[in-house]
Amino acid sequence: MRDLVDEPGHVRRGLPGHKVVVVAGGAGFLGSALCARLIASGQTVICIDNLLTGSADNIATLLRHPRFRFIQHDIITPFTIPGRVDEIYNLACPASPPRYQADPIHTFRTSIDGSLNLLALAERKEARVLLTSTSEVYGDPEIPLQSESYRGCVNTVGPRACYDEGKRAAETLFWEYGAHRGLETRIARIFNTYGPQMDPADGRVVSNFIVQALSGKALTIYGDGSQTRSFCYVSDLVDGLIRLMASDEKMPVNLGNPGEFTMLELAEKVQAKLGRRSAIVFRPLPQDDPRQRRPDITRARLLLGWAPTVPLDRGLELTIPWFAQRLGVDLQHETALVS
Amino acid sequence: MRDLVDEPGHVRRGLPGHKVVVVAGGAGFLGSALCARLIASGQTVICIDNLLTGSADNIATLLRHPRFRFIQHDIITPFTIPGRVDEIYNLACPASPPRYQADPIHTFRTSIDGSLNLLALAERKEARVLLTSTSEVYGDPEIPLQSESYRGCVNTVGPRACYDEGKRAAETLFWEYGAHRGLETRIARIFNTYGPQMDPADGRVVSNFIVQALSGKALTIYGDGSQTRSFCYVSDLVDGLIRLMASDEKMPVNLGNPGEFTMLELAEKVQAKLGRRSAIVFRPLPQDDPRQRRPDITRARLLLGWAPTVPLDRGLELTIPWFAQRLGVDLQHETALVS
Repeated sequence: MRDLVDEPGHVRRGLPGHKVVVVAGGAGFLGSALCARLIASGQTVICIDNLLTGSADNIATLLRHPRFRFIQHDIITPFTIPGRVDEIYNLACPASPPRYQADPIHTFRTSIDGSLNLLALAERKEARVLLTSTSEVYGDPEIPLQSESYRGCVNTVGPRACYDEGKRAAETLFWEYGAHRGLETRIARIFNTYGPQMDPADGRVVSNFIVQALSGKALTIYGDGSQTRSFCYVSDLVDGLIRLMASDEKMPVNLGNPGEFTMLELAEKVQAKLGRRSAIVFRPLPQDDPRQRRPDITRARLLLGWAPTVPLDRGLELTIPWFAQRLGVDLQHETALVS
Repeated sequence: MRDLVDEPGHVRRGLPGHKVVVVAGGAGFLGSALCARLIASGQTVICIDNLLTGSADNIATLLRHPRFRFIQHDIITPFTIPGRVDEIYNLACPASPPRYQADPIHTFRTSIDGSLNLLALAERKEARVLLTSTSEVYGDPEIPLQSESYRGCVNTVGPRACYDEGKRAAETLFWEYGAHRGLETRIARIFNTYGPQMDPADGRVVSNFIVQALSGKALTIYGDGSQTRSFCYVSDLVDGLIRLMASDEKMPVNLGNPGEFTMLELAEKVQAKLGRRSAIVFRPLPQDDPRQRRPDITRARLLLGWAPTVPLDRGLELTIPWFAQRLGVDLQHETALVS
């Protein structure tokens, strides 16, 4: 087992009452936003990431903070950390189809072996441990609004299975450790999330549309564009994760924005924000692509007092400038990006 | 990695053209029947079993055969076998709820780590490899007849999940190795199977009823007895497995008997066979217990030319004497067990 902190004195502990929080996958889009929020609220953060899809850029500012420590490690290999750990967030897994399909067995093992290693760490440290599961456990849902009791429609033998079934199996592991081994486990089922620091190249629809529109390229729509998704702005999602960790709820909780948009509606919104009308090209819908996706967040409202606060229009206005800067596009010349 | 055969010369190789077949879980009810059939057809069999739910009794006769070798090993620990291996059957996993729930994490890891280790062995040996998956991947099905395209209704966070989600995840692993790594993988989805050498104490309904009736005890029915199952006699199932292995089909194939019986009908059949009318006690239905289960075997018929040949009445007549002998009940005094 690898001991990951060779200089445990390096991480400066905070004030009494603060927490030491491990964030696996902390250099990813969502993980880095979570790390930043935890640092801002006074916690010590140990970020573990193999940098397979996460990026050192995402944590460049955090790396200078005395309460932040980054460790490059793949959680499928057993490891330990000396000293106290109070909370562990498992956000480690490639999450977009082109990325998680690049090495499906590794994706699968990240969810399963990675979860087992983090659960073992939580058991040793008596720490709370939260899994970021996914709306993908619902697969291609047959019902328009997915509550946590819906058992899903997932193909075990198809191109999305390495991610979907890996996450389903990780939920089972978390549930077992919570129900039978006394761990304080949490399971978040995250729906589509977007915001600054999304990987421009990972093939998600929000980043795809923004990058294509900013680059003056045609927007790609898979299928006829009538399939729907619900998009949650990253700050809302991070807030939901922190509330779930602080709660007593061991059963899965949906986190997402119930606002539902077709792909054509999203394309129009992006174009409207940029004051540009790009061409749209239609491509075949990939196998097992979900036709609809919308979270029932009744449990999150009741148990966590949580609901998203950032509407899609506002979220796009907060997101587009980051992509523009990243791509070197001067938004001064754009006319429409005004709230 | 453990090298499991310290005396490779021990196993006598058969005639040219014969196969060396590894059967993981080969000391179980189904595994031992498969081993016996393979030995009878001239193959060399290497049986691997941790004897957690399998039993040395099941392979006592086989142990004397020069083409049979037994290795006590838990497949969740990586291992290798020297020499040629042509085919690998993965039947290793406790399969009845009380047994697989006794150590749920181990059950889960048997399906997943065990499959990974057998797939790695198959890759090294360029062997065909078959997974015995299960009708449990359909969970508590919403449709009366389950074809392989049905995606199931499985609770990821419940008492059956360690088995159901472990098997679903194992299917994904087999599919990935078949689709992307060039392995000759096979996936059988096995429905309820019964016959001699079932563990009398593992809590399955056929063995429960027979043991209770032979012991003069009341028959236990969970729920109101209207839930249905389909029961396949073991020799038919073994025939299906061998045909599937010999086929070219990498996608899942249901193997089971489409005859569908309620629990009350099964109880009556067992009582009729024994000429005894026992009392029936009703107990609450366990959480997530399937209400119906019936295989659509269209694919098995088309692809394998396979269908069950032993009706339930005949299968019970073949099974009851084995249990009677095991329990020391003299069936001479019974009147009805005549076909």
